[in-house]
Amino acid sequence: MPDILHKVGIKSASPNDAYKALTTIEGLSDWWTRDTQGQNKVGEVISFRFGSNGGFDMKVLELDPGRRVLWQVTDGPAEWIGTKVSFDIKQDGDYTIVLFKHQGWKEPVEFMHHCSTKWGTFLMSLKSLLETGKGAAYPDDVLIDNWR
Amino acid sequence: MPDILHKVGIKSASPNDAYKALTTIEGLSDWWTRDTQGQNKVGEVISFRFGSNGGFDMKVLELDPGRRVLWQVTDGPAEWIGTKVSFDIKQDGDYTIVLFKHQGWKEPVEFMHHCSTKWGTFLMSLKSLLETGKGAAYPDDVLIDNWR
Repeated sequence: MPDILHKVGIKSASPNDAYKALTTIEGLSDWWTRDTQGQNKVGEVISFRFGSNGGFDMKVLELDPGRRVLWQVTDGPAEWIGTKVSFDIKQDGDYTIVLFKHQGWKEPVEFMHHCSTKWGTFLMSLKSLLETGKGAAYPDDVLIDNWR
Repeated sequence: MPDILHKVGIKSASPNDAYKALTTIEGLSDWWTRDTQGQNKVGEVISFRFGSNGGFDMKVLELDPGRRVLWQVTDGPAEWIGTKVSFDIKQDGDYTIVLFKHQGWKEPVEFMHHCSTKWGTFLMSLKSLLETGKGAAYPDDVLIDNWR
Protein backbone atom coordinates (compact mmCIF):
# COMPACT_ATOMS: atom_id res chain seq x y z
CA MET A 1 0.00 0.00 0.00
CA PRO A 2 1.35 3.44 -0.92
CA ASP A 3 2.41 5.88 1.78
CA ILE A 4 2.86 9.63 1.94
CA LEU A 5 6.38 10.49 3.12
CA HIS A 6 7.91 13.84 4.03
CA LYS A 7 10.94 15.28 5.76
CA VAL A 8 11.59 18.71 7.20
CA GLY A 9 14.65 19.97 9.06
CA ILE A 10 14.18 22.68 11.64
CA LYS A 11 16.84 25.11 12.85
CA SER A 12 16.81 26.84 16.23
CA ALA A 13 14.52 24.22 17.76
CA SER A 14 15.19 21.07 19.75
CA PRO A 15 13.52 17.67 19.29
CA ASN A 16 11.55 18.51 22.44
CA ASP A 17 10.31 21.76 20.87
CA ALA A 18 9.13 19.81 17.81
CA TYR A 19 7.52 17.18 20.03
CA LYS A 20 5.65 19.91 21.92
CA ALA A 21 4.31 21.40 18.67
CA LEU A 22 3.06 17.91 17.73
CA THR A 23 1.51 17.00 21.07
CA THR A 24 -0.11 20.08 22.56
CA ILE A 25 -3.41 21.57 21.44
CA GLU A 26 -1.73 24.97 21.27
CA GLY A 27 1.14 23.70 19.14
CA LEU A 28 -1.11 21.77 16.75
CA SER A 29 -3.38 24.83 16.46
CA ASP A 30 -0.41 26.94 15.41
CA TRP A 31 0.69 24.87 12.40
CA TRP A 32 -2.19 22.62 11.28
CA THR A 33 -5.59 24.05 12.13
CA ARG A 34 -6.78 26.67 14.60
CA ASP A 35 -9.76 24.41 15.28
CA THR A 36 -7.98 21.65 17.19
CA GLN A 37 -9.56 20.09 20.25
CA GLY A 38 -9.08 17.08 22.46
CA GLN A 39 -6.62 15.48 24.79
CA ASN A 40 -3.11 14.40 23.97
CA LYS A 41 -2.99 11.09 25.80
CA VAL A 42 -2.58 7.56 24.47
CA GLY A 43 -6.06 6.21 23.76
CA GLU A 44 -7.67 9.66 23.58
CA VAL A 45 -8.88 11.42 20.43
CA ILE A 46 -7.81 14.77 19.00
CA SER A 47 -10.22 16.49 16.58
CA PHE A 48 -8.95 18.65 13.75
CA ARG A 49 -11.53 20.72 11.84
CA PHE A 50 -11.22 22.83 8.70
CA GLY A 51 -14.55 24.69 8.49
CA SER A 52 -16.73 23.54 5.61
CA ASN A 53 -13.87 21.31 4.42
CA GLY A 54 -14.56 18.88 7.26
CA GLY A 55 -11.75 17.37 9.26
CA PHE A 56 -10.22 14.40 10.99
CA ASP A 57 -10.38 12.63 14.34
CA MET A 58 -7.08 11.08 15.39
CA LYS A 59 -6.72 8.50 18.14
CA VAL A 60 -3.35 8.83 19.86
CA LEU A 61 -1.59 5.45 19.64
CA GLU A 62 1.99 6.22 20.69
CA LEU A 63 3.76 9.08 22.46
CA ASP A 64 7.52 8.85 22.93
CA PRO A 65 8.65 12.26 24.24
CA GLY A 66 11.12 13.98 21.92
CA ARG A 67 11.12 11.01 19.55
CA ARG A 68 7.83 9.82 18.11
CA VAL A 69 4.10 10.46 17.76
CA LEU A 70 1.65 8.00 16.17
CA TRP A 71 -2.03 8.61 15.46
CA GLN A 72 -4.74 6.55 13.81
CA VAL A 73 -7.59 8.19 11.92
CA THR A 74 -10.94 7.25 13.46
CA ASP A 75 -13.15 9.72 11.54
CA GLY A 76 -12.82 11.82 8.41
CA PRO A 77 -12.85 11.16 4.66
CA ALA A 78 -13.41 7.49 3.79
CA GLU A 79 -9.89 7.19 2.32
CA TRP A 80 -8.37 8.29 5.65
CA ILE A 81 -10.25 6.07 8.07
CA GLY A 82 -7.96 3.47 9.61
CA THR A 83 -4.81 5.04 8.15
CA LYS A 84 -1.94 5.97 10.46
CA VAL A 85 0.03 9.20 10.72
CA SER A 86 3.46 9.23 12.36
CA PHE A 87 6.13 11.78 13.14
CA ASP A 88 9.65 10.55 13.98
CA ILE A 89 11.92 13.17 15.47
CA LYS A 90 15.71 13.22 15.74
CA GLN A 91 18.65 15.58 15.96
CA ASP A 92 21.07 15.82 13.02
CA GLY A 93 23.76 18.43 13.53
CA ASP A 94 22.14 21.86 13.76
CA TYR A 95 18.77 20.52 12.66
CA THR A 96 15.85 18.84 14.31
CA ILE A 97 14.58 16.38 11.71
CA VAL A 98 10.94 15.36 11.45
CA LEU A 99 10.23 12.30 9.31
CA PHE A 100 6.55 12.10 8.50
CA LYS A 101 4.56 9.11 7.27
CA HIS A 102 0.86 8.77 6.44
CA GLN A 103 0.43 5.08 5.81
CA GLY A 104 -2.35 2.67 4.98
CA TRP A 105 -3.83 4.32 1.87
CA LYS A 106 -5.57 1.66 -0.19
CA GLU A 107 -5.15 3.28 -3.61
CA PRO A 108 -3.06 6.12 -5.06
CA VAL A 109 -6.18 8.18 -5.90
CA GLU A 110 -6.13 11.87 -6.86
CA PHE A 111 -7.08 12.73 -3.26
CA MET A 112 -3.87 11.04 -2.09
CA HIS A 113 -1.86 13.25 -4.48
CA HIS A 114 -3.65 16.27 -3.00
CA CYS A 115 -3.07 15.18 0.60
CA SER A 116 0.62 14.55 -0.07
CA THR A 117 1.25 18.08 -1.30
CA LYS A 118 -0.97 19.55 1.42
CA TRP A 119 0.87 17.63 4.17
CA GLY A 120 4.11 19.03 2.73
CA THR A 121 2.87 22.60 3.08
CA PHE A 122 1.63 21.94 6.63
CA LEU A 123 5.00 20.46 7.60
CA MET A 124 6.65 23.58 6.19
CA SER A 125 4.19 25.47 8.42
CA LEU A 126 5.47 23.45 11.41
CA LYS A 127 9.04 24.32 10.41
CA SER A 128 8.14 27.99 10.08
CA LEU A 129 6.34 28.01 13.43
CA LEU A 130 9.38 26.63 15.22
CA GLU A 131 11.92 28.78 13.38
CA THR A 132 10.04 32.09 13.28
CA GLY A 133 7.16 31.76 15.77
CA LYS A 134 4.61 31.92 12.96
CA GLY A 135 3.02 28.97 11.18
CA ALA A 136 0.39 28.84 8.44
CA ALA A 137 -2.43 26.92 10.12
CA TYR A 138 -5.94 26.74 8.66
CA PRO A 139 -7.62 29.15 7.88
CA ASP A 140 -4.35 30.85 6.91
CA ASP A 141 -3.00 27.73 5.21
CA VAL A 142 -1.20 27.66 1.87
CA LEU A 143 -3.64 26.91 -0.96
CA ILE A 144 -2.40 24.27 -3.36
CA ASP A 145 -5.30 23.43 -5.70
CA ASN A 146 -9.07 23.38 -6.34
CA TRP A 147 -9.58 21.25 -3.22
CA ARG A 148 -7.87 24.01 -1.18
CA MET B 1 7.27 -0.09 -4.64
CA PRO B 2 6.45 3.24 -3.01
CA ASP B 3 5.82 6.33 -5.14
CA ILE B 4 5.97 10.05 -4.52
CA LEU B 5 2.65 11.68 -5.44
CA HIS B 6 1.65 15.35 -5.63
CA LYS B 7 -1.09 17.55 -6.99
CA VAL B 8 -1.19 21.27 -7.66
CA GLY B 9 -3.98 23.35 -9.17
CA ILE B 10 -3.05 26.42 -11.15
CA LYS B 11 -5.28 29.42 -11.79
CA SER B 12 -4.95 31.77 -14.75
CA ALA B 13 -3.06 29.23 -16.81
CA SER B 14 -4.17 26.67 -19.40
CA PRO B 15 -3.05 23.04 -19.68
CA ASN B 16 -0.92 24.19 -22.62
CA ASP B 17 0.77 26.83 -20.43
CA ALA B 18 1.59 24.14 -17.87
CA TYR B 19 2.82 21.79 -20.60
CA LYS B 20 5.10 24.54 -21.92
CA ALA B 21 6.61 25.09 -18.46
CA LEU B 22 7.29 21.34 -18.28
CA THR B 23 8.74 20.90 -21.75
CA THR B 24 10.84 23.94 -22.61
CA ILE B 25 14.31 24.62 -21.26
CA GLU B 26 13.18 28.15 -20.37
CA GLY B 27 10.10 26.92 -18.51
CA LEU B 28 11.98 24.22 -16.59
CA SER B 29 14.70 26.76 -15.71
CA ASP B 30 12.08 29.04 -14.20
CA TRP B 31 10.63 26.60 -11.67
CA TRP B 32 13.11 23.75 -11.09
CA THR B 33 16.70 24.77 -11.67
CA ARG B 34 18.32 27.63 -13.57
CA ASP B 35 20.93 25.12 -14.75
CA THR B 36 18.78 23.13 -17.16
CA GLN B 37 20.14 22.02 -20.51
CA GLY B 38 19.23 19.64 -23.29
CA GLN B 39 16.59 18.93 -25.84
CA ASN B 40 12.94 18.25 -25.19
CA LYS B 41 12.34 15.45 -27.67
CA VAL B 42 11.38 11.84 -27.08
CA GLY B 43 14.59 9.84 -26.72
CA GLU B 44 16.71 12.90 -25.87
CA VAL B 45 18.13 13.77 -22.44
CA ILE B 46 17.57 16.88 -20.34
CA SER B 47 20.18 17.67 -17.66
CA PHE B 48 19.21 19.38 -14.42
CA ARG B 49 22.05 20.58 -12.18
CA PHE B 50 22.02 22.02 -8.66
CA GLY B 51 25.58 23.27 -8.13
CA SER B 52 27.53 21.23 -5.58
CA ASN B 53 24.33 19.27 -4.82
CA GLY B 54 24.69 17.40 -8.11
CA GLY B 55 21.71 16.79 -10.34
CA PHE B 56 19.77 14.51 -12.62
CA ASP B 57 19.70 13.47 -16.27
CA MET B 58 16.22 12.68 -17.55
CA LYS B 59 15.52 10.80 -20.77
CA VAL B 60 12.25 11.99 -22.34
CA LEU B 61 9.99 8.95 -22.79
CA GLU B 62 6.59 10.48 -23.58
CA LEU B 63 5.31 13.87 -24.70
CA ASP B 64 1.56 14.35 -25.15
CA PRO B 65 0.99 18.08 -25.70
CA GLY B 66 -1.21 19.66 -23.04
CA ARG B 67 -1.70 16.29 -21.33
CA ARG B 68 1.35 14.33 -20.22
CA VAL B 69 5.12 14.30 -19.81
CA LEU B 70 7.13 11.22 -18.80
CA TRP B 71 10.84 11.10 -18.05
CA GLN B 72 13.18 8.34 -16.90
CA VAL B 73 16.21 9.10 -14.77
CA THR B 74 19.42 8.00 -16.51
CA ASP B 75 21.94 9.64 -14.18
CA GLY B 76 21.88 11.09 -10.67
CA PRO B 77 21.76 9.68 -7.13
CA ALA B 78 21.73 5.87 -7.03
CA GLU B 79 18.19 5.82 -5.60
CA TRP B 80 16.91 7.78 -8.61
CA ILE B 81 18.47 5.85 -11.47
CA GLY B 82 15.83 4.01 -13.47
CA THR B 83 12.93 5.72 -11.66
CA LYS B 84 10.27 7.54 -13.69
CA VAL B 85 8.82 11.02 -13.25
CA SER B 86 5.47 11.91 -14.79
CA PHE B 87 3.25 14.95 -15.00
CA ASP B 88 -0.39 14.47 -16.00
CA ILE B 89 -2.22 17.66 -16.90
CA LYS B 90 -5.96 18.35 -17.09
CA GLN B 91 -8.50 21.13 -16.77
CA ASP B 92 -10.89 21.13 -13.80
CA GLY B 93 -13.14 24.19 -13.73
CA ASP B 94 -11.00 27.30 -13.27
CA TYR B 95 -7.91 25.25 -12.53
CA THR B 96 -5.26 23.50 -14.52
CA ILE B 97 -4.42 20.41 -12.51
CA VAL B 98 -0.99 18.80 -12.53
CA LEU B 99 -0.79 15.29 -11.08
CA PHE B 100 2.80 14.36 -10.37
CA LYS B 101 4.28 10.91 -9.81
CA HIS B 102 7.87 9.85 -9.13
CA GLN B 103 7.71 6.08 -9.28
CA GLY B 104 10.08 3.16 -9.00
CA TRP B 105 11.74 3.87 -5.65
CA LYS B 106 13.03 0.60 -4.21
CA GLU B 107 12.82 1.54 -0.53
CA PRO B 108 11.16 4.32 1.51
CA VAL B 109 14.53 5.64 2.70
CA GLU B 110 15.04 9.03 4.40
CA PHE B 111 16.17 10.44 1.05
CA MET B 112 12.75 9.56 -0.39
CA HIS B 113 11.07 11.52 2.44
CA HIS B 114 13.34 14.46 1.57
CA CYS B 115 12.66 14.24 -2.17
CA SER B 116 8.90 14.05 -1.59
CA THR B 117 8.80 17.31 0.35
CA LYS B 118 11.26 18.94 -2.04
CA TRP B 119 9.19 17.94 -5.10
CA GLY B 120 6.18 19.50 -3.35
CA THR B 121 7.96 22.83 -2.98
CA PHE B 122 9.15 22.73 -6.60
CA LEU B 123 5.61 22.02 -7.81
CA MET B 124 4.44 25.00 -5.75
CA SER B 125 7.20 26.90 -7.59
CA LEU B 126 5.67 25.76 -10.92
CA LYS B 127 2.25 26.97 -9.70
CA SER B 128 3.71 30.30 -8.63
CA LEU B 129 5.55 30.72 -11.94
CA LEU B 130 2.35 30.23 -13.92
CA GLU B 131 0.16 32.33 -11.64
CA THR B 132 2.52 35.21 -10.88
CA GLY B 133 5.35 34.97 -13.42
CA LYS B 134 7.85 34.14 -10.70
CA GLY B 135 8.94 30.67 -9.60
CA ALA B 136 11.46 29.58 -6.98
CA ALA B 137 13.99 27.65 -9.06
CA TYR B 138 17.40 26.61 -7.73
CA PRO B 139 19.42 28.52 -6.49
CA ASP B 140 16.43 30.47 -5.16
CA ASP B 141 14.59 27.32 -4.10
CA VAL B 142 12.75 26.84 -0.82
CA LEU B 143 15.01 25.16 1.77
CA ILE B 144 13.34 22.31 3.59
CA ASP B 145 16.02 20.57 5.66
CA ASN B 146 19.74 19.82 6.23
CA TRP B 147 19.96 18.32 2.73
CA ARG B 148 18.72 21.66 1.33
